[in-house]
Amino acid sequence: MNLLLINPNISTSVTALIEAEARRAALESTRFNVQTAPAGVAYIETPAESVIAAYETFRILADHHGQYDGAIVAAFGDPGVSQAKELLDVPVIGLTEAALANAFLLGGRFAIVGISERIGRWYEETVAHLGMGARFIGYHGLGEAFRDVGTVGRDARDILLDMCRRCAAAGADSIILGGAPLAGLARDIADQVPVPLVDGVGSAVRMAESMVRAGYPPRRSGALAVPPEKPYRNLPPGLSALIGRRTE
Amino acid sequence: MNLLLINPNISTSVTALIEAEARRAALESTRFNVQTAPAGVAYIETPAESVIAAYETFRILADHHGQYDGAIVAAFGDPGVSQAKELLDVPVIGLTEAALANAFLLGGRFAIVGISERIGRWYEETVAHLGMGARFIGYHGLGEAFRDVGTVGRDARDILLDMCRRCAAAGADSIILGGAPLAGLARDIADQVPVPLVDGVGSAVRMAESMVRAGYPPRRSGALAVPPEKPYRNLPPGLSALIGRRTE
Amino acid sequence: MNLLLINPNISTSVTALIEAEARRAALESTRFNVQTAPAGVAYIETPAESVIAAYETFRILADHHGQYDGAIVAAFGDPGVSQAKELLDVPVIGLTEAALANAFLLGGRFAIVGISERIGRWYEETVAHLGMGARFIGYHGLGEAFRDVGTVGRDARDILLDMCRRCAAAGADSIILGGAPLAGLARDIADQVPVPLVDGVGSAVRMAESMVRAGYPPRRSGALAVPPEKPYRNLPPGLSALIGRRTE
Amino acid sequence: MNLLLINPNISTSVTALIEAEARRAALESTRFNVQTAPAGVAYIETPAESVIAAYETFRILADHHGQYDGAIVAAFGDPGVSQAKELLDVPVIGLTEAALANAFLLGGRFAIVGISERIGRWYEETVAHLGMGARFIGYHGLGEAFRDVGTVGRDARDILLDMCRRCAAAGADSIILGGAPLAGLARDIADQVPVPLVDGVGSAVRMAESMVRAGYPPRRSGALAVPPEKPYRNLPPGLSALIGRRTE
Amino acid sequence: MNLLLINPNISTSVTALIEAEARRAALESTRFNVQTAPAGVAYIETPAESVIAAYETFRILADHHGQYDGAIVAAFGDPGVSQAKELLDVPVIGLTEAALANAFLLGGRFAIVGISERIGRWYEETVAHLGMGARFIGYHGLGEAFRDVGTVGRDARDILLDMCRRCAAAGADSIILGGAPLAGLARDIADQVPVPLVDGVGSAVRMAESMVRAGYPPRRSGALAVPPEKPYRNLPPGLSALIGRRTE
Amino acid sequence: MNLLLINPNISTSVTALIEAEARRAALESTRFNVQTAPAGVAYIETPAESVIAAYETFRILADHHGQYDGAIVAAFGDPGVSQAKELLDVPVIGLTEAALANAFLLGGRFAIVGISERIGRWYEETVAHLGMGARFIGYHGLGEAFRDVGTVGRDARDILLDMCRRCAAAGADSIILGGAPLAGLARDIADQVPVPLVDGVGSAVRMAESMVRAGYPPRRSGALAVPPEKPYRNLPPGLSALIGRRTE
Repeated sequence: MNLLLINPNISTSVTALIEAEARRAALESTRFNVQTAPAGVAYIETPAESVIAAYETFRILADHHGQYDGAIVAAFGDPGVSQAKELLDVPVIGLTEAALANAFLLGGRFAIVGISERIGRWYEETVAHLGMGARFIGYHGLGEAFRDVGTVGRDARDILLDMCRRCAAAGADSIILGGAPLAGLARDIADQVPVPLVDGVGSAVRMAESMVRAGYPPRRSGALAVPPEKPYRNLPPGLSALIGRRTE
Repeated sequence: MNLLLINPNISTSVTALIEAEARRAALESTRFNVQTAPAGVAYIETPAESVIAAYETFRILADHHGQYDGAIVAAFGDPGVSQAKELLDVPVIGLTEAALANAFLLGGRFAIVGISERIGRWYEETVAHLGMGARFIGYHGLGEAFRDVGTVGRDARDILLDMCRRCAAAGADSIILGGAPLAGLARDIADQVPVPLVDGVGSAVRMAESMVRAGYPPRRSGALAVPPEKPYRNLPPGLSALIGRRTE
Repeated sequence: MNLLLINPNISTSVTALIEAEARRAALESTRFNVQTAPAGVAYIETPAESVIAAYETFRILADHHGQYDGAIVAAFGDPGVSQAKELLDVPVIGLTEAALANAFLLGGRFAIVGISERIGRWYEETVAHLGMGARFIGYHGLGEAFRDVGTVGRDARDILLDMCRRCAAAGADSIILGGAPLAGLARDIADQVPVPLVDGVGSAVRMAESMVRAGYPPRRSGALAVPPEKPYRNLPPGLSALIGRRTE
Repeated sequence: MNLLLINPNISTSVTALIEAEARRAALESTRFNVQTAPAGVAYIETPAESVIAAYETFRILADHHGQYDGAIVAAFGDPGVSQAKELLDVPVIGLTEAALANAFLLGGRFAIVGISERIGRWYEETVAHLGMGARFIGYHGLGEAFRDVGTVGRDARDILLDMCRRCAAAGADSIILGGAPLAGLARDIADQVPVPLVDGVGSAVRMAESMVRAGYPPRRSGALAVPPEKPYRNLPPGLSALIGRRTE
Repeated sequence: MNLLLINPNISTSVTALIEAEARRAALESTRFNVQTAPAGVAYIETPAESVIAAYETFRILADHHGQYDGAIVAAFGDPGVSQAKELLDVPVIGLTEAALANAFLLGGRFAIVGISERIGRWYEETVAHLGMGARFIGYHGLGEAFRDVGTVGRDARDILLDMCRRCAAAGADSIILGGAPLAGLARDIADQVPVPLVDGVGSAVRMAESMVRAGYPPRRSGALAVPPEKPYRNLPPGLSALIGRRTE
Repeated sequence: MNLLLINPNISTSVTALIEAEARRAALESTRFNVQTAPAGVAYIETPAESVIAAYETFRILADHHGQYDGAIVAAFGDPGVSQAKELLDVPVIGLTEAALANAFLLGGRFAIVGISERIGRWYEETVAHLGMGARFIGYHGLGEAFRDVGTVGRDARDILLDMCRRCAAAGADSIILGGAPLAGLARDIADQVPVPLVDGVGSAVRMAESMVRAGYPPRRSGALAVPPEKPYRNLPPGLSALIGRRTE
C-alpha cells in the first residue's frame, strides 16, 4: 500500500527521524511518500501554532489527493487530522490518536512524555478532545529549552529516560513518547523502563496499515461525510478541488 | 473603545447582519472595524471548513494588529478564537463562548438552534471543548437545505420559531440562536418564546466590552502566554510578525 | 440602570469594600442601592452558613422588589442566587458565577484564591454545581485564622500575592480572587502576577450591566419560571408576596 | 434510639403519611419525635422553595438539639441536609440520599417517579450534587396539577403505577418513588411493577438506624466539622446556640 | 434473618476476623452461615485474582441456594457481587458497595486505606465502576509487604493509623478501611482519627440487614433479572441449577 | 506469528464463524490455534455469564501458555481480557477493545448493534469500563429471541441491516457489529450502510498483529505487572502455574 507521510512542520531533520522510524515499523510491502510542510514553524508547541500546521496539512493532503491509500500526519496533537477525515475517502491517522489506540490496547493507564512543558497543555487537550481522558494520568515535559528539535531526543535522552521511570513509579502502565522529534527513542530506552513505551510514528504506521487493510468504504452520512457543497473563494487550487467536490 | 469585528467567511450579506446587530448591542462609545474574510467558504458548517476559517481569522487579526482594543470573531464555533488568545494582548471573543457565558448567567440549561443539521456536531464539539457541556441539553437544526445564507434567518423564521418553542417544551431555560446568519432573529421572535433567546453577536459585543473595560494585563505565563519563539518560514507577513514576536 | 447590591452577611466593613469596588467598575449611568443583611454571620465560610445567608438574601430581594433593574449578591458561593432567578423577572447575579464567566472568556484554566482553607470546599462545590469544573485547577486559601474580615485583604496581601504566583506556576491561566472581603485586591497586585486576576465584585457589576442591557423578557417555562402557586404560611411579608404571586 | 423526624413543609396531612410509613419501617425499639415546619410552603417543588425549607429544617434541628440520636429530613431534595451534617454530632439523613443508597445497593440503574414535572429538575440536581448521576436514567412526574398533596399518592395511583412500568420498560433496575407525599405507595403497588420500588421514608428510617447503630464519633476535621466560630447577629435562639458553639 | 457470609479467599484466619466483626455489628436476631472458599488465593490483590474469587463466590452462593435471606461477599472489590445480583432473589451485598453507601450517607468526600499499594488500583476501579468516583479523593496502601494477612491489621496498626490521619489532613470527611483483613481496626483506632472510619464488614452487615428488612420482590425485568435461559455444559452442579433455572 | 484464538463459550458453530473471519482478516504469515471453551454457556449475554467465561478464558490461556505470541478472546464484552493482561507477557486482545480502537481511529461517534436487548447492558458497561464512553451513542439489539446462535447473523440479516441504517440516521459515524456470532456480517452488508461497519473479529486480528509486531517487553511495574506472589490452593494445574509464577 501507498502511505502519504506528512511532517506538518518545516524541520527536515525531524522529517528524517519520522521517515526512518516509519520504515522500521512498516510491513515490507508498504511504500511511503514523505512530505515536509513548505510553510509554518519548526515544531508545533501550542494550539495557535497548530492552526497553521492544520492548514498546511490540508494543503499537502489536497495536493497529493488520489495518490495514496492512507495518510499519516506525523505531529503529536494531530493538527487537521480529525477534520481531514471529512474530506478524504482513505484513512488519515494522527500520531496522537494512533499512540492512544496503542496505549488503550496495552491496557491500564498511560502517561505522556514530551519535549517541553508548554507543549503539554496542547497534548492534554488533544487527549481530552479525543475522548481518552479517563485513562490518562499526566504529561511530563522537558523543563529546559533545547537547542535543536532534530536532536533533542538524543541530547536529552537521559532526562527523558528519568522522566519515563518517574511516570512508571507514579502508576503509568504504559508511556507515550509524544512528539515526532522523539521518534525512535522508545526502541533505544525500552529495556530501561519497566512498562511499555509507545512510539507515535511506529503506532501510526501499524494502525494506518490496519485501517487500510480493513478496506472501509467512503462515508455517506454522519459528521465525517463530505461537507455539503457551498460557495468558496480564493482557496489554494488543490484545496478548492477537495472542498469543492460534490457528495453524490 | 475600538473593536475589530471579523466575519471569518466570505459572505458579505452575513457581514451586514453581523454589523447591524453589533451596532444595536454596543455602548454608544464603541467603534467597530468590520472585516470579511477574503478567502474561504460561504459559511462554516464543519470542523474541516473551520480549519480554513481559523487560518483566515489569524490573518485578519494579524493584519490589523495594534489597531483594536478587542476583537470579535463573528462565527459560531469560534474558529481560531481560543488559539488567538495566545497571540494577542487584547481580548479576542468568539460568538459561541460569549453566548455560552450569557446562557450560563441566565442560569439553568440551554439549547442551541441553528441553520443546518450537519452544523450541529461542530457546535456540540465546541460546547464540549469549552467545558460547558453539563448545562447543554441539545442542538436543533434546520432539516432542509436553504437557498441563501444571508436571508435564511428571515426565510426560515417560522420553522426556527417552532424549533425554539420545542426546545423550551423540552426543558431549555434559555436558547442560543447559533450562527452569525441568525444575528438579530432573537429580537424578532423573543416575545413568542417562553424563555430568553440569546443572540451570539449581541452577547459577543457586550462581553467584549466588559472584558476590555476590565483592563486585564498581558499574560506572561500559562498556556495562553505568547508561545516560545522558534524558527518559521513562508508565513503571510502579518502572521510572521505576530508568531515571530518575542516574549519579554 | 438601578442595581440592588446585597451583602448577605452582617459585616458593614465588607459592605464598604464591595461598594467601593462596584462603583469603580460600573458604567457612569449605573446607580446602586447597597444593603447589608440585618441577620446572619460575619462572613460565610461553609454551606451551613450559606443556608442562613440564602434566606437573608431572599428577604432583601423581596423587600426591595420592583425597585431594581438587576441585583448582585456580593458573596462568593452565590447564596440563594440560582434559586432567586426563579422568583424575579430581572437578572440576579452572584459573585462566583460572574467571576467564572469572566475566567471562561479569558480562556484556559483558572484557580481560586480565598481567605481560609475551610471556605475552599464550599467554593469548589459551587464551581461544580455551576457546571464549570472542567476548567478549574484548584483552590488555595489562607492557612491562618485572620483577625478582621474587613481588612484581611490588606493584612494578608503578601501571602495572597504569593499564593497567586504559585497558582500561575501551577498552570493557572487566570486566577479568581474569591470572596467579597478581597474586593479590590486584584487591582492592587495585578502587575505582580503573570496572569489576569479576576475580581468578583467588578466582574459581577459588568456582567449584571450586560445582562440588564440585553433586556431578556421574564421566563414563562422551564426550571427558572415562577414556581406553581401553592399554600404557604408564616413567611416574612415581602417573601410572601414574592412566593405567593401568580404566574400568568 | 430516638429519631427526630422532620417534615420541613407545613402540610400536616403529609406529616401523617410520613409518620405512618416511618413506624412501619422502623425497628421495634426506635422512637420518633415528629415535627412539622411552622412556616413555609405546602410542599417543596423548586430550589427556591427549598431555600425556605432548609432554613426551617435548621430551626427545628436547633430547637430540639440534644434530644435525638439521629434526624430524618422527610422531604425529597434533602433541604438543609448536607449542610446540617456540619452542625450536628449525630446522623442527619435525607430522603433522597437514603433512597439513593438503597438503589445503589440494589444495583444497576434507577429512575425516579414523582408528583409533578416541575419538581423533577430539583430532584435531578440533588442526585447530581450527591454524586450519584452515573446510575440515574431519568425522572418522570405527573403532568397534571393535583388537588391535595396529602392524597395525591392515592388519587393518582394508577397513573403513577403506569409511570413505574414505563420506567422499568426503559431499563430501570429499581425505581425511587420520590417525595414524602408518596410515602407508602411502594408497598401498595410493588407486586405490579417488575423491579423493586424504593420508598424514601422507609429507606431513610432503616439507613438512619444503621448509621446511629454504627456509632460514629463527632467530626473534628474536614468540610463537615463544626464551622470555625465567628460573629453572628439576630439569629433565632436555637440556631444561635448551634451556630455559635465552639469547636474544641 | 439468615445471612450467608462468604470469604471468597482461602485464608481461614481472615474468615475469623470477618465473623467476629460481623457478629459485633449485627442485630441480635441475625444468624450467620460463614463459608471460606475451598479454592483460590490467600487474598485478592488484583483484578486477575478476583476472576478466580468471583467464580468461587458463585459456587458458594449456588451450593447454599435457598438457605439464606441475604448474602455478604466479605472481600473488598466485591468479586462476583454485581453479577450475582442477577442470579439470586435475595440481597447480595459486597464490602465495597456497603462501605461506599455508608460513606455516602456520612456525607462529603472519602478516602480508602488498605493493605498494599498494588491492591489500590483494583479498589479504585471498583469505586469507579460502582459510579461513586465523584466523592473519592484517593487510596493509600501499605508500602511494605506484610507477613501474615490474618494479622496485618494488628501488625501494621500504627502505620495504618498514620495513613488515616494523613487522609484526614488531605480533606477526607470519612475514611474506609478497605479489605476484610482490616475488619475491626476501625473500632480500635476511631478515637485517634478526627473523621469517621468506615468498617467494611460492619457496614455490609447493617446494610444487608436493611435490605433484607425492606423485603424487595424478585426482579422480573432489567439488567439484574435472571438471564434468559440458554444451553450450558460442564458447570459445577449447584451453578448449573442456578444458571439453568427458568425465569417465569 | 502464532495467535491463540479463544471462543470462551461452548458453541462450536460460533467458533467456526470466528475462525473463518479471522483467517480472512489476517496477514498471510499469521497462524491460529483455535480453542472452544469446554465448559460454560452457549453465548454470554450478561455479566453473570461472563464470570464463568472469564474463568474458562483463564484456563485456556494457562493451558497453552508459552505456545503463542498473542491471544484473542473472541467474545464481545472481553471476559477476562483486562485481567489476563496481568498474567501474560504477550498481548491479549478482546473483541470489544479492538473494535473500539478501530472505531476510535475511524473518528467521530460510534454505535453498537448486537444480538439481543439484554446483552446491551453488558456491552455498555464494557465500553464505560474501558473509558470510551464519550464517543458512544448507543446500543441496539434484536428484540426477538433467536433460534440458533450460530446462524443468527444470517437469519436476522435484514433486521440487523435496518438497525445499522437507523444508527447511521441517528448520527453514528461508525457502527460496531457486536458479538462473535455476527462475525463476517460487516462484509456482507457494508455497501448498504452509509458509514463504516466494524467487525470485532477482523479488528481483533489486525490489532493483535499490530501489538505483536510492536514487540513490547514484559511489564515490571504498574497495575498490569504480574501480581505479587501469594499462597493459593486447589486451582486447576495450568492456572496454578500462571498465578504462582514469580515476578523477578
